[in-house]
Amino acid sequence: MKLSKAYWQTYKEIPSDAEIPSHQLMMRAGLIHKTAAGLYTYLPMANRSLSKIQNIIREELDKIDCQEVLMSVITPGELWKESGRWETMGPQMLKIEDRAKRDLCVSPTNEETVTDLFRKTITSYKQLPLCLYQINTKFRDEIRPRFGLMRAREFLMKDGYSFHLDSQCLDEFYEKIYQAYENIFKRMGLEFIVVEADGGAMASGEAKTHEFQLIADNGEDTVITAPEKDYAANIEKAATRRVQENKLPATDLKEFETPTQKTCEEVAKAFDFQIEQTLKSIVMVSEVEGEKSYYLCLLIGDDSLNEIKFNKFVKNNNTRAASQSEIAQIGLVKGFIGPVGIKNVTVVLDESIDQDSSYVVGANKPGFHFSGFVPSRDSQDAQIADLRLAKAGDTYEGEPIVMKKGIEVGHVFQLGDKYTQSMNAQVLNKEGKKVTPLMGCYGIGVSRILAATIEQCHDENGIIWPKALAPYEVYFAVIGKSDETKALSLEIYQELKKAGVEVVLDDRGMGPGAMFKDADLLGLPLRLLLGERDYQASGEFELVVRKSGEKIKVKKEKLVQLVKAQLESL
Amino acid sequence: MKLSKAYWQTYKEIPSDAEIPSHQLMMRAGLIHKTAAGLYTYLPMANRSLSKIQNIIREELDKIDCQEVLMSVITPGELWKESGRWETMGPQMLKIEDRAKRDLCVSPTNEETVTDLFRKTITSYKQLPLCLYQINTKFRDEIRPRFGLMRAREFLMKDGYSFHLDSQCLDEFYEKIYQAYENIFKRMGLEFIVVEADGGAMASGEAKTHEFQLIADNGEDTVITAPEKDYAANIEKAATRRVQENKLPATDLKEFETPTQKTCEEVAKAFDFQIEQTLKSIVMVSEVEGEKSYYLCLLIGDDSLNEIKFNKFVKNNNTRAASQSEIAQIGLVKGFIGPVGIKNVTVVLDESIDQDSSYVVGANKPGFHFSGFVPSRDSQDAQIADLRLAKAGDTYEGEPIVMKKGIEVGHVFQLGDKYTQSMNAQVLNKEGKKVTPLMGCYGIGVSRILAATIEQCHDENGIIWPKALAPYEVYFAVIGKSDETKALSLEIYQELKKAGVEVVLDDRGMGPGAMFKDADLLGLPLRLLLGERDYQASGEFELVVRKSGEKIKVKKEKLVQLVKAQLESL
Repeated sequence: MKLSKAYWQTYKEIPSDAEIPSHQLMMRAGLIHKTAAGLYTYLPMANRSLSKIQNIIREELDKIDCQEVLMSVITPGELWKESGRWETMGPQMLKIEDRAKRDLCVSPTNEETVTDLFRKTITSYKQLPLCLYQINTKFRDEIRPRFGLMRAREFLMKDGYSFHLDSQCLDEFYEKIYQAYENIFKRMGLEFIVVEADGGAMASGEAKTHEFQLIADNGEDTVITAPEKDYAANIEKAATRRVQENKLPATDLKEFETPTQKTCEEVAKAFDFQIEQTLKSIVMVSEVEGEKSYYLCLLIGDDSLNEIKFNKFVKNNNTRAASQSEIAQIGLVKGFIGPVGIKNVTVVLDESIDQDSSYVVGANKPGFHFSGFVPSRDSQDAQIADLRLAKAGDTYEGEPIVMKKGIEVGHVFQLGDKYTQSMNAQVLNKEGKKVTPLMGCYGIGVSRILAATIEQCHDENGIIWPKALAPYEVYFAVIGKSDETKALSLEIYQELKKAGVEVVLDDRGMGPGAMFKDADLLGLPLRLLLGERDYQASGEFELVVRKSGEKIKVKKEKLVQLVKAQLESL
Repeated sequence: MKLSKAYWQTYKEIPSDAEIPSHQLMMRAGLIHKTAAGLYTYLPMANRSLSKIQNIIREELDKIDCQEVLMSVITPGELWKESGRWETMGPQMLKIEDRAKRDLCVSPTNEETVTDLFRKTITSYKQLPLCLYQINTKFRDEIRPRFGLMRAREFLMKDGYSFHLDSQCLDEFYEKIYQAYENIFKRMGLEFIVVEADGGAMASGEAKTHEFQLIADNGEDTVITAPEKDYAANIEKAATRRVQENKLPATDLKEFETPTQKTCEEVAKAFDFQIEQTLKSIVMVSEVEGEKSYYLCLLIGDDSLNEIKFNKFVKNNNTRAASQSEIAQIGLVKGFIGPVGIKNVTVVLDESIDQDSSYVVGANKPGFHFSGFVPSRDSQDAQIADLRLAKAGDTYEGEPIVMKKGIEVGHVFQLGDKYTQSMNAQVLNKEGKKVTPLMGCYGIGVSRILAATIEQCHDENGIIWPKALAPYEVYFAVIGKSDETKALSLEIYQELKKAGVEVVLDDRGMGPGAMFKDADLLGLPLRLLLGERDYQASGEFELVVRKSGEKIKVKKEKLVQLVKAQLESL
């Protein structure tokens, strides 16, 4: 591509809504254009990278006999009503009524469509296992779309769905696709980590699920790793332990006045306790069909509640912190809540609380706390569960954990019979009996990978594309306006193209400063320079590796060979 | 692909809603699956053909420096309000309100998005000409979706948009893209015809527009060609002439009783006139901002009104036949309408009516007609225009026309400044003055091509894919269950794949009858047969060309070479 003919330009300004480097760089490097909140046009350079991402995914999935289909973006409401998700998807799903007053939606995912396809075309175990996938547009009406493609409303996704006669077959395929995902992200040249994820409150205990996280400082997810133990999990799932220090021996329960001290920090500071010697009380509400149940969650003063773990504990996704009026309703006093003597509320102690030590807790009385709360003695009906959010300083099987920020770009998930059951998809097994097959689902955020890649691969000057995803491989910069230089640049440009090198020729006639800035910003793996004066003096071109900054001088005869070799080595 | 592992099966039943061969064959050959009215899933075989269609389009457009982008499928209502199409697109556009109560729609086309992109990124004539295109999902809420992919609600389309400083540049690019379209459909191996189309009532007289029509018996469009004159036009546009016969010399206007004869046919038959000696009267209403104008269109008795031509004549798209009550309101009598003595109605004579001959017309009086109506004498205020629909027997520049049925798969169109004007897109010209650029738009119905191809290329046994679009090139059928035969079939399968041949191996163990039926139905260009007994007897394979039925026997050593040569020759 000659840049003089390309629809490509860079920008100096950083748009005010671009908060993170990938968003800023994608705007500045002319990769995307915003049409409206969370809606983007992929410009030609980004479109090329998108194709490369898609091709890698296709090749690796086809190797394990996944089969590509293309489902409709707009799907009928009736399928979502069958599965029960017409209501539960909530406002992130764009619902539409067509001219015949039929319910439709813009698909946020496609379990319903694929299960419908399955039940209408597959009748026998002989046709299993089966994995269908598509790369298609999805829409989720994010309440606060931001970070460019990272959390856009419309996005490109690879979604795959597998069907199996039994869990052994599902497990085997799960291993295969896990491996294919690893190959995919390795081929893309990205640093990633696979973490155990949480299957949600409704998943059966054995259902496996993993996330593929690209490591990046601005990742929205926190991943916990224990490299020594080969352990990695999303913070939502991570079952780490805190190091226990400063335990207080059991003493008598004793009320004391805390007129203005409400938080654990305030009480600890004012009355000379360690924060680990206090317990925080969090009131949660779990609603099932309009029926509310209240829970008092107790955690060590400097811990936080992991709501995913709480949901799992109560086996319900529809939970939230209690409102001020709800707290008052059940007779508790905000700021002074505690477990002693309360009724109609289930008390749940985080398992890291020592049952036989003393803690400070609220006294359910304005301006008062208790010291000497000993769980095994003072809260005998309490349940015990893992409720806390992992944090720095924790250990996993005795080894210290390392926390990293990640961007979720892939997810593999054993769905079980959730959809086949609700949508009545059955096949005949070997014995001629109808059975309900098991499903897995496998997503990759195709357009999100673009943003996540840049989040991981950039410096202060711009993007540093991994070779496999770069829009082009070589940025060929030319300085000099003589006819000879122009002819030479065209000759080299054609030679590189003939050699299969993906090259852009910057023939826009810009000065070297602006041109190099553009080249660094766009961040193709190699920058080749033909400088008229240098070439006349030495007969040499200059090749610069974007990632390392390494500069190599090269004569014309060796040029193509060097470019190929350098690309090979990246 | 081994069929034993493929998600592919054929069906014997023709779905009740499948009215035309392409729809029936796509369902029976396992290419598509219906999710709901006008919504389909492309199954793996169809998905492969779709990719091939897309690749050909991309390659040919990239050659002429068109640049691929990807716009969002969901677009903001505000852009459509700017262009004025939020209202005029009517119920075919799916409108949605998002959770923040902002108007969105599922894009039926993308002039608005691209013009917005243009005005925000292009400022100077130096950046022109520019052509951006995408291949993306579109949605049009057809009132009666049918014919499978031919008139689906959701479909894949290539839409391209070019921008130019002046009409000379637009014309030059129009020629280029016209040529690229010809290359595209030639490479696909399809029989097509390019016809002049109609630009609509609002297009300026010089705006060029052409349709690319695939010739097929079930085409919804009628195209008129005059091969001798190198002329082809959509029937809506075709400016042909009727052969004038049986003219009646001018006589006096004379009322006569036609008690039960209302139509031209009835009057001609009862009173011994030729049908060409009668004129039919059609009352049309043209509405502009609620203001109605009435037109009485006169056509020779066996001609029909071309409403597109009428719209063009009145320069308005909002026209229709008058209702019975409107006809009464303006004082005319249904069944006996005529041009003599009427008021407040503009009379328009089709230009094929002879001004000085006598015709029979209605007398605007129940039960009466006039004979001897001579336009030049009896209707001096009438306007004259080309209003008639071309039909068999017409001529073009003296040459007889040929009528064909076609399926529109491509459309090129000079939009002029319709969108750049309404959306205020301007660039600086050489003199530094702001000017409004001109646009062209260029569509290809990507998914429709699948259906149209099959409509054009099939026989009673199934599809006959042109090589360039076939899901695979060779259907390798194997009869025999011995280990030797299985091993040999795998060996040949691998050899063909290694030689770059796209082959499916039918290793499902079906009987020859059912297998050949499946092969014919799917319609890959070549069918290769390894029959165990034949091979043991003669050492020969059999190659059958789907299109011609030609059978060739071939030994193992020459097999790959023959397959390659046969594919080459197709």
